[in-house]
Parts: sequence; structure tokens; C-alpha cells
Amino acid sequence: MEAARLHEYTHDMSEALQIDEVDQPTADRGDHVVVEVEGAGWCQTDNHIVEGMWTDYVEQQLPMTLGHENAGEVVEVGDDVETVSVGDKVICHPVMTCGVCRSCRLGNDMHCENLAFPGLTTDGGFAEYLLTSERAVIPLPSSVDPTDIAPHADAGITAYHATKKAVQKLNPGDFAVVIGVGGLGHIGLQCLDSMSAANIIALDIKEEARNLADSLGAQYTLDPSDESIVDQLMDITDDGGVHQIIDFVGRDETTSLGPQIGAGGADHHIVGYGGHIHEPSQTLVNGEFGFRGTLVGKYTELQELMALVDRGDVDLHTTRFSLGEINAVAEKLEHGEIEGRAVITP
Amino acid sequence: MEAARLHEYTHDMSEALQIDEVDQPTADRGDHVVVEVEGAGWCQTDNHIVEGMWTDYVEQQLPMTLGHENAGEVVEVGDDVETVSVGDKVICHPVMTCGVCRSCRLGNDMHCENLAFPGLTTDGGFAEYLLTSERAVIPLPSSVDPTDIAPHADAGITAYHATKKAVQKLNPGDFAVVIGVGGLGHIGLQCLDSMSAANIIALDIKEEARNLADSLGAQYTLDPSDESIVDQLMDITDDGGVHQIIDFVGRDETTSLGPQIGAGGADHHIVGYGGHIHEPSQTLVNGEFGFRGTLVGKYTELQELMALVDRGDVDLHTTRFSLGEINAVAEKLEHGEIEGRAVITP
Amino acid sequence: MEAARLHEYTHDMSEALQIDEVDQPTADRGDHVVVEVEGAGWCQTDNHIVEGMWTDYVEQQLPMTLGHENAGEVVEVGDDVETVSVGDKVICHPVMTCGVCRSCRLGNDMHCENLAFPGLTTDGGFAEYLLTSERAVIPLPSSVDPTDIAPHADAGITAYHATKKAVQKLNPGDFAVVIGVGGLGHIGLQCLDSMSAANIIALDIKEEARNLADSLGAQYTLDPSDESIVDQLMDITDDGGVHQIIDFVGRDETTSLGPQIGAGGADHHIVGYGGHIHEPSQTLVNGEFGFRGTLVGKYTELQELMALVDRGDVDLHTTRFSLGEINAVAEKLEHGEIEGRAVITP
Amino acid sequence: MEAARLHEYTHDMSEALQIDEVDQPTADRGDHVVVEVEGAGWCQTDNHIVEGMWTDYVEQQLPMTLGHENAGEVVEVGDDVETVSVGDKVICHPVMTCGVCRSCRLGNDMHCENLAFPGLTTDGGFAEYLLTSERAVIPLPSSVDPTDIAPHADAGITAYHATKKAVQKLNPGDFAVVIGVGGLGHIGLQCLDSMSAANIIALDIKEEARNLADSLGAQYTLDPSDESIVDQLMDITDDGGVHQIIDFVGRDETTSLGPQIGAGGADHHIVGYGGHIHEPSQTLVNGEFGFRGTLVGKYTELQELMALVDRGDVDLHTTRFSLGEINAVAEKLEHGEIEGRAVITP
Repeated sequence: MEAARLHEYTHDMSEALQIDEVDQPTADRGDHVVVEVEGAGWCQTDNHIVEGMWTDYVEQQLPMTLGHENAGEVVEVGDDVETVSVGDKVICHPVMTCGVCRSCRLGNDMHCENLAFPGLTTDGGFAEYLLTSERAVIPLPSSVDPTDIAPHADAGITAYHATKKAVQKLNPGDFAVVIGVGGLGHIGLQCLDSMSAANIIALDIKEEARNLADSLGAQYTLDPSDESIVDQLMDITDDGGVHQIIDFVGRDETTSLGPQIGAGGADHHIVGYGGHIHEPSQTLVNGEFGFRGTLVGKYTELQELMALVDRGDVDLHTTRFSLGEINAVAEKLEHGEIEGRAVITP
Repeated sequence: MEAARLHEYTHDMSEALQIDEVDQPTADRGDHVVVEVEGAGWCQTDNHIVEGMWTDYVEQQLPMTLGHENAGEVVEVGDDVETVSVGDKVICHPVMTCGVCRSCRLGNDMHCENLAFPGLTTDGGFAEYLLTSERAVIPLPSSVDPTDIAPHADAGITAYHATKKAVQKLNPGDFAVVIGVGGLGHIGLQCLDSMSAANIIALDIKEEARNLADSLGAQYTLDPSDESIVDQLMDITDDGGVHQIIDFVGRDETTSLGPQIGAGGADHHIVGYGGHIHEPSQTLVNGEFGFRGTLVGKYTELQELMALVDRGDVDLHTTRFSLGEINAVAEKLEHGEIEGRAVITP
Repeated sequence: MEAARLHEYTHDMSEALQIDEVDQPTADRGDHVVVEVEGAGWCQTDNHIVEGMWTDYVEQQLPMTLGHENAGEVVEVGDDVETVSVGDKVICHPVMTCGVCRSCRLGNDMHCENLAFPGLTTDGGFAEYLLTSERAVIPLPSSVDPTDIAPHADAGITAYHATKKAVQKLNPGDFAVVIGVGGLGHIGLQCLDSMSAANIIALDIKEEARNLADSLGAQYTLDPSDESIVDQLMDITDDGGVHQIIDFVGRDETTSLGPQIGAGGADHHIVGYGGHIHEPSQTLVNGEFGFRGTLVGKYTELQELMALVDRGDVDLHTTRFSLGEINAVAEKLEHGEIEGRAVITP
Repeated sequence: MEAARLHEYTHDMSEALQIDEVDQPTADRGDHVVVEVEGAGWCQTDNHIVEGMWTDYVEQQLPMTLGHENAGEVVEVGDDVETVSVGDKVICHPVMTCGVCRSCRLGNDMHCENLAFPGLTTDGGFAEYLLTSERAVIPLPSSVDPTDIAPHADAGITAYHATKKAVQKLNPGDFAVVIGVGGLGHIGLQCLDSMSAANIIALDIKEEARNLADSLGAQYTLDPSDESIVDQLMDITDDGGVHQIIDFVGRDETTSLGPQIGAGGADHHIVGYGGHIHEPSQTLVNGEFGFRGTLVGKYTELQELMALVDRGDVDLHTTRFSLGEINAVAEKLEHGEIEGRAVITP
């Protein structure tokens, strides 16, 4: 089968991946599931992987097929699989977990001690077929097209996970700031709107993104590159500051904005990771301010997100590309030219 | 009356404060309470105030009497005060709050919109008498000597508040790291031990501090200046990492230690604030790691800490000094020469 | 001024209250606030008070003016009042609290040790003027008419408080049951819809109430008097049962329904209190099922509810009556003939 | 092998079970684990099963081997088992779970949709060998003797689970009541003491049980059959009432005590299930009081309890009996003649 694979780390996205002919995976273990990929989202993290930004954090063996936002149809299952059958349409939670370590037993899939992460640590879904496991697949209702919702497998669940943490601290009338209304941000904004009665302030430097935010339920949309952004936020909040910040960008200029606009006890959730945090400890103390990293999400959270999709509460903006166009997609995203989310259809 | 006042910001602790003769405060408002100060703790924050480190965060008018860890005897009350009477021994929550703003109504005293902070924004307790309010005083049982427990008014409540946040996420057998076993840390460690069944690992570069930690209930004590500190912590936790970190130091070298030793989802509570946080956003994302500032604590938390004192669960190490020795105390603390907590007895 | 007062406990609602001429209240204490009542909701609890159902729980001295759902205009304030002024439109939290007991400090207004409850333990708002205190009043935006929203002072906040507890345990796609879509239920249902992405199942024996539920956002409406009600609920939930039940009725037949339809770990929130709970302990154990009483709500929750009103998320159905019609209102409610909520306009 | 089996429901404990010769179980499924039973605790629930009290709640096919508190040595494992090996000493979580249903994924083992409960719905551990699964076994440190701690498999985890729920709402100085200091209660009391700084009040009608409570850390011990029990509790709590009640008895007289002694917002956790709850809905409303059933506990909670055992925080009082003495044990427990917990050593 064909697969888009990373052979060498590079900053030149025009030659990010190479289309190779590789063996089709088979269900060799009792819990294995092989999925014919109908949609595989391209993610900012894919750019980061290509650049080698993950080598300090995980082990990778090149060449490796990327693609960690996968959905499609089950074509083979291991002997012990009971919850899905050949022919089922499924979305894939991004990690294959052991199910018996303490993190798994607590429901914290991302912290599984024996985790495999297709597209990051093993072969992923930019290919005709993907090998995953029973614990990673969620059956889809017949009304849902796998290609349409593939990006929820990582963009969606990550946005949902961060948003859910924020929602737990948001009361009606509180202010929530969404920084970056792109692939993840436009999902997070809709989750916020559906799951809370907070007032949503969306920040994006692009006008189209602000218009999108407006149409998806943001009460306020602002350009964070405006010099008076802090004053504008203080005016909106009657000088009280904002209560929760969900930062889908994570650059130096967004992480430094948080402490200037947070109410006492505010959290700044770090989802995007383009840059750094540089702050005096005293700034966190004075505002009882928190920077809280957030990583993908739980299997049960992907179930919950699918419930939101099923209710019609979250609408995903996607554009489809063939496997052969994959490096063009990588370049477009690098230049901020992808609206919503790109989906590869291998 | 005599009061130790700050006239000019300085880095020379030998001339930090000046003993002035000032008017004794009176209860002019219905909710006012005047306390004859029996003990007023000297805090690292006092050094920071003297150095001018708080001018970016709050408004200060010099000269100002410092001292925000106060306990003593009520000598005058306003007309509307009902919960304490002249002659009552009390400990003073560090801030005077309005009681009607939303933060007060939520119980978050430190985020009161109309807060006055004696010793930081108004005259404090390094004086014979202190002006405070009914909402700031907690009556003491007759068995408790105000001088002995004065530092709980700020050091204690701050350590307790941070610890309580950590405890809410600690299960039996989890690992909690206490960084810095000084004035605050030795209280926090005892609170942890009393309120959780976590395994406590205390880090301090001073051997006496580690011995103190050992005697107060730490399961492990380590020197964080040891090159192999990360490996030692990974060994102790069987490579799983630690779950909650309470950092009573907050220097660059302690904030950078956290992400290296945290289990997935760990929090690093910033209490001390000597330095900075410098981290890639990706580090927080990868470990789902959080830096969470923590600021003093609630009035109800000071009540809870007094319950711990009353149960004998928290023992405070103090040394007493006269008002005239106050600059010597400032210098000693600067040089790390105060064991436990210094208490001024005006 | 005129006031509708209870002179004797009775089950005959046609002579529930008597219109008396009484003295207008004055602001004698520093925190007192006198409100000219523009709207005062009549509540099922008023019927219960008239019947003497509260004598076992609180002290009452007759005659007493009823009315605990009050809104209007401030006409006099005590010397220490700072947050409202004469001329302000306000809604009144149902209880006057001391602000200094531990419950108040925790934000739990209903558990204040020194609470006065106008309309239940002191004179209430079925009168031209009401005496309350600064800690009980919330200023209204100019767009809001006090008469329209008066029932939120108790019906609203009670429904909100119960709903908020349920929301904290509801994930997207979970099932929430609202029992009784009357004065409180129709508010609770809207709060649920606004603050969660749970699927809402509304139960009411009256068709009009079910139609109202349908128009307010319920995904399913059922008649609980139908013999197959349990089967219907199991079908809807795919045999999983429901996750949270908010019971605005509290009769024997509704409390006994809960354990039959609850998923493992479900809560049955008791808001209405017409009847009893009779269950084997084993039934609670087997389903890890909880019956959780719920009482009015916090001052901050009334603020949050006002934010929902301001957002247009909660629409209150009211009918206005004069003070002279008050016993007719009592009778109508007894016979289930009030749509939404009756508001007295003294 | 020999197994003690229930052939017919009966109230005569002298003929509760019958010793049969049955086939030894084998590991036929990939995740199966066969354990040689070294200790199997006898539980009040075993008496209830013998009496047929569970037939309304679960399906049972007689004859069935009872015994749901099991520990021993692994003697055979299925092909896919990775976390334990032959020769390992283990304690068995009471249920075998599927690992893929939503409850399992949330970590709520007891609510598994495909649960098997050895000793309640399939053959249990009053036999030489027990069939269980990888997801149910927890390896023990070499210092721990399986026979000594077998009752933690159900009595322990149930007491721990209830206690942990209570602890989450207990602040230092709050009051927690433990009703019944028997097999479960004496464990719950120690968990409370280890995990909180609440003041513990233990109630038991037996003097020896009260003495045991006293030695295990209770601040107060009272006889609940004393007429003045409510007054005594109000005196101890300075008329504030108690904050959390853990009821290991669950009889009519203990469930009716709760609302009389609870502070506002108190919870009454139902663990034992000898009787009923009968209360007016109004009683729950007035005190914002909750009756909350509690059922066994999570796998991760049994891990946490093992951590408490390992720390020396929980000491289990047991007496050993042979398999042949099992009906005598059933009778003794019925008559309240077992101190601590009876352990069968097949």
C-alpha cells in the first residue's frame, strides 16, 4: 500500500514526506484492529514532527508514516476484539494503550506507561491502512462520515480536553478567552459555547478567523496584535480580568499576555506550543495565576466529543486533499493558508 | 506608640526599617478592630518589600509600618463588631476585606476588590498596636499563645493554602515534593503529612533543614544541589515521577527542576518567588504539566490551620526578637540564618 | 403600608393570608436596605408555610408577612451601605446573612448561623416595602424589569443551585431527567440546557408542561404517570439509565422512580418536598445511588443566574396579580392552575 | 478441589454452605488468571447472599461457590497476561471487568457493563483455587502475607471508597462520624485518620468496638443506643452538627440518626444495608442533606489501600478459620461474635 513517510527531519516542508510502497498491516495480536483510512487530518504537530521538535520528548525510528488523526472502516480484527466488527466505521483515539497500567485504570489514556502513538512513535494514518487496537476505536453513528470528522481524533479531542478543564471553573457570566481560532481553536470555541454559559472572547490576528469565531458563538472578537489589547480586555471585563484562557497558539507573545489579563486565580491553558513561557515567579504568585499544559485527551472525552457532534453542537471546517498533495498541505499550514483543517484521503 | 517603618526602598537590610513614634490607631469604623500586637512574624516578603519588589504589583505610600503576620489581644472594637470583644486573643488574617464583592462572597479573600493589606499597602503589625477589621480576626483558644503562632497569619496560611490545593490531587502512595524546608516549608510539610497519605520527599540544600524535614514526617530528604537529583527522584518513584510539587523557593533552579521530575499531569505550585520560570510551551504540553501560582489563603483556611494547631498536627519553630532588633532579623534572613520563623514582640 | 400576613396555619388556601395595615420598615442598622417591592413571587413553599409544614424546622412568630421572592427599588439604605444607592433596581437574595460566620465565609449563604429569612422567619415581601440588608441585594441592569424576574429570587436560584450541582457531574451525551416542569422546573431546564451538553428528558403529567419543556430545549418529554415510564427511559438511554435526576416535585412516586432509572452512581436531587423517601439501604448501595437535598442557593449563584438572564438564556413565564388577589393565587397553585410563576405586585 | 457452595437460600446459617468436590478452574481465555487461594474473607454480604437478599439485584445460578475477598498466589495465567506471573502473590479486586465499556474507561470498575463478580454472580474464593482475570489482580510486596490482608479485597476497598468520598469534603477540624466499628468500620476509621485531619467520632453499641475505635485514632467514641446521643453530638460539635457520616450499618435506626445530627450540606454515606431509609423529602431539603449509597470501589482505590497498608497506616484485625468451619463463621457473624474480620484459609 502507499504511505506518506518521514525519512529525515527537515525545515523544508516541500519535501517533508515521501510516498513509499509499504506492507499492509495485519491484526497479529488479539486486540489488534486494522482500519482502512478514509480521512487523516494534517496537524500543526505534523510540521513539528517533521522539524524534529519531538526528538527530545519521545523515541522515533525513521522512516515512519505520519498521521495521528484517523477515521475509517474496520477491515480486520484480532481474535479477542468484541466491541467492533469488520465493516464498522470508526474514529481512532490517537494512542494505543495497555489498559492495565495505573494511568489506564484511572482513565488517563495519554499517560499510559506502555503507550504507542501512531504517527508519532509508530506508523500512522497517512496510508491506505492503519494498525490500531480495540481500546483506541470508537464506533460512529451511520449518519457520520469518517472523512468529515477525522480531525476530531486529535485536533478535536485536544481542544475538547483543554476546554473541559476550563469549563469546570467557569460560571455563567465569567469570561473565557480563546487565543487562536484555527484548526483546534474553532472546535474549542464551539465546545465552550455548548458546555458553558461563559462569555467567550476570541483573539486572532486574522480577520477571517475572527469572523468565523463570531459566527460560531463568540460574544467578542479582538485582534491581539492591537497595541491596546490589554485595555480592551479590561474594558470588556469591567476591570475584573478574564477567568480562563485557552491558548491554542502558545507563542511567547500569547503566553505573556495571560498574566496581564487574568483575574485572580485565572488559568492559562497551554495547547499550542510554538514558543516559550518567561515569567517572574512573583507574577504567578501575585495573581494566583496558573500555566497549565494540556495534552490530547481521554478516550472517554473523544466519546463525549462525538456526542457533541451527534447533537450538532460542533461543526468541523475541513478541506480534503489526496495523499499525493501532502507536502503542499504541510507548506500551506506553515504559511497559515489552511482554513479550518486539512484532511488527507489516502 | 513605636512602629518599625519603611521610609525608602533599599537592598541594605541593616537599615531596612526605622523605629518611629506614631499615633496609636483607633476603631473609627463600625467593623474596626484594634489589636495590641503580641507577636508579628518577619517574612521573606518583608525583605522583598524593603527591596521595592512589590511596587509593580501594588500601590504603597512610604513611610509605612511593615508586618503582616500578626496576633495579639483585642483592645478596641467598632460599634458593629459582634464576634470578638475586648480582651480576646486573636490571630489576624493578613487582609482586610469588604465582604460584599463577588470574590469575598465566594470566600476568596485574597481576591477582594477592595482589599487592604496591612504591612503591604497600609500600616502593619511591627508596632504596639494594629488596626484591622472584624472580618480579619480569628479568636484563639485559651491554650494558644498569640506570640507562638503569629507566623501562621501569613507563612502558615500560605503554606496551608498551597498544600491544600496539592492534597486535593494526591492519593495514598503518590509522591509529593516539598522544595525548601524553611519558614513556610516546614509548615507545609506538616500540613501535607496531616491531611494526606502521600509519600513526602523534602528537598533542601541545608543539612539541618533536611534533618528537620525528617523529624517532621518526610519519608525522603534530598539535597537538590546534588547533580544526580533527577535520577534519585526517578529511582524513588520507580521511574514514574512525582505527582505534586510545592515550591517554597521559586528560584530559576527550582522551577526548572519540576518538569524534569513530574509525572504526567503533575502540578508545580509556586509559593516562593525569588526567580523566574523559563520553559518551552512544549514541555508543559508533553507532560501535561502545570505551574500554578499560589497567594496567601482564605480566612476559612486560617481557621482550618488553627484546627491543625489545636490538634497538635503542626508545630511552629520560632525565635523571638524585640522591635529594636528588627533590622538584624532582616539581615539574618537574607543570609539564611533564621531557623524556622522570627517573631517580633513589639 | 399594606401587607399580606399569615395569622393562623390553615389548609384552606382561600383564607391563607389577611391584608393588614402595618408600619413601613426603616433602615435602622448600618447595613439595612429598604426596598419598595415591585414584584414578589408566590411559591409552593408559601402554601407549605401556610399549612404549618415549616414549624418543625424553623421558628415562626405569627402574624408574619409572607413573600420570599422579592425585587424592586431601593428607597433607603443604612449608613454603611456602599454597594447600592437609593433608586437602584435590585433583586433580593432570600436570606439576610451575617457575613462573619464560617458558612458565610465559605460562601454558603443558606447555612449562615445567624440567618434571617424574610417571608419564612421574619416579615417578607408581600407588602409595599421590604426590609433586607446589603449582603442580600443584587443590582439589576437597566434592561431588566424587577417585576418580571422577581421569582428568580427563590424559584430561580433554587432551580439554578440544584442544576449546577447536577451539571458538575454531566458530560456531553449523558442523560439528565427533570421531574416537574412548573415554576422551578421550567427554569432548571433552561439552566441545564445553557450550562451543559447533556440530553434532557423532561417528565410532567400535564401535556402543556411537556409542550413548554419541548419548546425550552428538552430532547425528550414523557408522562411519568404512564405505566411503561421505566421502560421508556431505559429505551432512550440504551439500557444504561440516566445520570442525574432533578426532582422539582419530591413526592413518593417521584422519589421511588429515581433508583429504577438511575445509571450506576446517579444522583437524585430533591428540590420539591411534597412527600417522602422510602427505600431499602441496599437499593442505594447496589446502584451507588444518592438522594441529595438541595436548598435555595448562594448569593453568587443568584449573580450567575442574573448573568444567564442577561444573556437571554433563561426566560421566565410569569402572570401578575395584585396584593388583594393573593389568596386566589394560593388556591390556584394548590390546584395546579398557575402557568409558570405568579408574581404579586404590591 | 474442595469448595464451599450455596445450594439453596436459607436463613439458617448453620447450613449456609456445603463443601463440595468440584473441578479446578483453568485459564482458558487470554486474560485469565488462576489464583491458589491463601485467604478469603467472610463478609456480612455473604450472609445476605445466603438469605437471598441479592436475587432482586443480580442473577445467580445455584449451586455457586461464595467468597469475594480473595488473595493468594498466581498458579496459571492466560497467554496475553503481562503484568503478573506464576508465583506472584496477589490480592483480587472483587470484580472481573471488560476494560472496554465506558465505565471501565472512566475507571469505575463497579459499574462495568460486562462485569462478573466471583462469589456473587460466578464461583468465588471459598475454594482451593479461584478463576479471575488480569484486570482484577494487584501484585503484593513481598512483606505482605496474602492471608492477612485478604479482607481488604472487599471490606477494605468498600470502606476505603466510602471514606475517600467523605474525605474530599472534610476540612481540618470538621467532624466525621463513623457508625459501626466492625469489619469495615475499623478499616474506614483508619483510612479517615490517615487521609484527613477531621475529628473522628465513632459510634458503636459494643464497648469493645468503641475501645478499638479509640485505639485506632477516634477522637470521640459514643454509644448510639444512648437516648441522649443527638445531644451528645451537638455538644461535641458546639451545636454545628457533623459534616460527613459514614454508615457501615445502614439500619433504620442509623439512617434516621443522620438528618438529626448533620450540619448544613452534610452527607450520610450508606455502606451497610441492613435496613431502610424513611424520611420526608423536606428533611433532606431543609438541611441540604444527602443519602449517598456507596458500592465496593475502584481497582485504583485498592491500589491506594495497599499503599496505606504498606505505609503501616491501616492495620487489619483478622481471625483465621478452615474451610470446614465456614458455617460456624456465618453463624458467629450473624450473632455479632466475630472480632474484626474472619478469614477462611482453604
